Amino acid sequence: MASKRRSTRSTSFDVAALAGVSQSAVSRAFSPGSSLADAKRQRILEAARKLDYVPNLIASSLTTRRSNIVAVILGNLANPFYVTVLDTMVRRLQADGRQVLTFTVDKGAEADEALLRVLRYQVDGVILTAAQLSTRMTSLCHDRGIPIALFNRYIPGSGASCVRCDNVGGGRRVAEAFLAAGASSFAVVLGDPRGTTSADRARGLSDRLVEAGISRAAIRIIEGASTYDSAYAAAHATWRREPLPDAIFAVNDIMAMGAMDALRQRLGVRIPEDVMIAGFDDIPDARRTPYRLTTMRQPVEDMVEETLAILRLDDPEDEIAAGVDRVLPARLVWRDTIRPRAAPPPSRGEPA
Amino acid sequence: MASKRRSTRSTSFDVAALAGVSQSAVSRAFSPGSSLADAKRQRILEAARKLDYVPNLIASSLTTRRSNIVAVILGNLANPFYVTVLDTMVRRLQADGRQVLTFTVDKGAEADEALLRVLRYQVDGVILTAAQLSTRMTSLCHDRGIPIALFNRYIPGSGASCVRCDNVGGGRRVAEAFLAAGASSFAVVLGDPRGTTSADRARGLSDRLVEAGISRAAIRIIEGASTYDSAYAAAHATWRREPLPDAIFAVNDIMAMGAMDALRQRLGVRIPEDVMIAGFDDIPDARRTPYRLTTMRQPVEDMVEETLAILRLDDPEDEIAAGVDRVLPARLVWRDTIRPRAAPPPSRGEPA
Repeated sequence: MASKRRSTRSTSFDVAALAGVSQSAVSRAFSPGSSLADAKRQRILEAARKLDYVPNLIASSLTTRRSNIVAVILGNLANPFYVTVLDTMVRRLQADGRQVLTFTVDKGAEADEALLRVLRYQVDGVILTAAQLSTRMTSLCHDRGIPIALFNRYIPGSGASCVRCDNVGGGRRVAEAFLAAGASSFAVVLGDPRGTTSADRARGLSDRLVEAGISRAAIRIIEGASTYDSAYAAAHATWRREPLPDAIFAVNDIMAMGAMDALRQRLGVRIPEDVMIAGFDDIPDARRTPYRLTTMRQPVEDMVEETLAILRLDDPEDEIAAGVDRVLPARLVWRDTIRPRAAPPPSRGEPA
Repeated sequence: MASKRRSTRSTSFDVAALAGVSQSAVSRAFSPGSSLADAKRQRILEAARKLDYVPNLIASSLTTRRSNIVAVILGNLANPFYVTVLDTMVRRLQADGRQVLTFTVDKGAEADEALLRVLRYQVDGVILTAAQLSTRMTSLCHDRGIPIALFNRYIPGSGASCVRCDNVGGGRRVAEAFLAAGASSFAVVLGDPRGTTSADRARGLSDRLVEAGISRAAIRIIEGASTYDSAYAAAHATWRREPLPDAIFAVNDIMAMGAMDALRQRLGVRIPEDVMIAGFDDIPDARRTPYRLTTMRQPVEDMVEETLAILRLDDPEDEIAAGVDRVLPARLVWRDTIRPRAAPPPSRGEPA
């Protein structure tokens, strides 16, 4: 069994003839959101099925300048948070009759090259969930009329619109939970040093601790590079030599899991009895019984909705939103890695 | 800051004029694999940069009938194995100057609807990593000259080419490891009942056990539905009432992890002292210290290469390969969930 490629196929005119409608009605039957009576649409789709007709959206995109394709630029899928994000975006866009063109860039890499490649495909919009972006590239998208949105990050000075959760506020909330549980010494496991997300979360924690009278110098900073393995190695290397703090904040869950495994399995540390730990994101893995991690949940569904709202895919003639900065609240999810309020209760902090 | 969409932009003729070359040289400079002297290509790319020129591959795909887009149809990304697969495919195709259009279909769903949507985009090939596929749809792709490859599955009677690992052989290998460790009672945690993969792995194990004199009736079968949560629930519901077998084979790692967590954390079972367990896939999570799962590793990189070989993206004029069935070996990775050979050694089984 083998066939020559690209053999003859039915056209929209064949379908129109069989269904007894105009060719433009056939086009509309395959365009998401276009007006057409249901009975007519059904008759056209039935004729299309009989003739094995599939519309060529590539050809029609040349006239409409709409491809119904949205590009998503991804970083490291080793962090399950971004898997959830991708899955949510793909399902949401598919439900609207749109498709996702997926790009991967390595951590810390400039997204410029990926963006240039995206632009060759007449995409209707670009979502960037990773990497750095130059101002020049933001302008290039802008000038070509292609809306762009940053997800879970902002790039100062780039002029690009973004959607993120309140990372500073989330870090503050973790500090309050630690303080309420009686902690007085702290560590932070940092993520990607080039990203704003890690820095904001760490800053939120530190600022709140300083407000509570903790010395900034007393907050131990560890580099976890945003991955399980790096955080595992950093936690092991640090606390095999140094005394444990009362509480550790890993700026994402996957690093919290790495630190927990190193502490428990390599150093025999009990969590939360010997040290408390909190993460950020609320990835599915963090809910599993070996971890039961107390963490800040990012509202992924809402963040995706806000991102699509910025792209205004349904209103391509609208002006492109620029410099929009949408910040959604994160929510503390209590599990088993922060002790309930210590007895005797600490002098400061509110009940969680 | 806001701009009207789709403003004027440079054309390939502008770039050709500035670089002092023909317009067709400009096209070639942006086509992967086309011939052009390095110095000339550099001059063209430099001119393109100056003019902010980006080629419209959508337009050129109408003449060449090549979009450089490959569609990947995905099932449940909750199984990290498919995240690794997607990441490997995206990186590999990007390195060749190609892009990935991502589709998600729900487990057990027909891929027909997704395929119809894929075909509207003049994709150069389709990779299906999930779901069922009708013979009609295989023919439709075939007639339109679009190569299709199934990844990690085959669909009997569909005529579609596929790449998979030796699931039956992998199941047999797990049986041999269990037998060598002295096991004489067994359970299997099954995955998606509609997929061939789960059935083949379970059959490999059972057949090998029966050859070793185990009664087929003595192999307890549990439905795990391919997810962590289902396997966790099934393991808990089963072994809170029934005596444990000597060894459990979960047909994928994510289910093995769910079963392990239920057994250890809910039922106080020790692994491998009280029960041995093995998985399949070798996902990154299975390597972590709470699991250290003994499992069959799928050769993902090689499987991706074989899949792309079937699509023959570089040779679009070739006949489409149909009915190709490429089977790659899986390899046992020893970690901590199968005991070394028991003492006294069992009468049958070879050293692992």
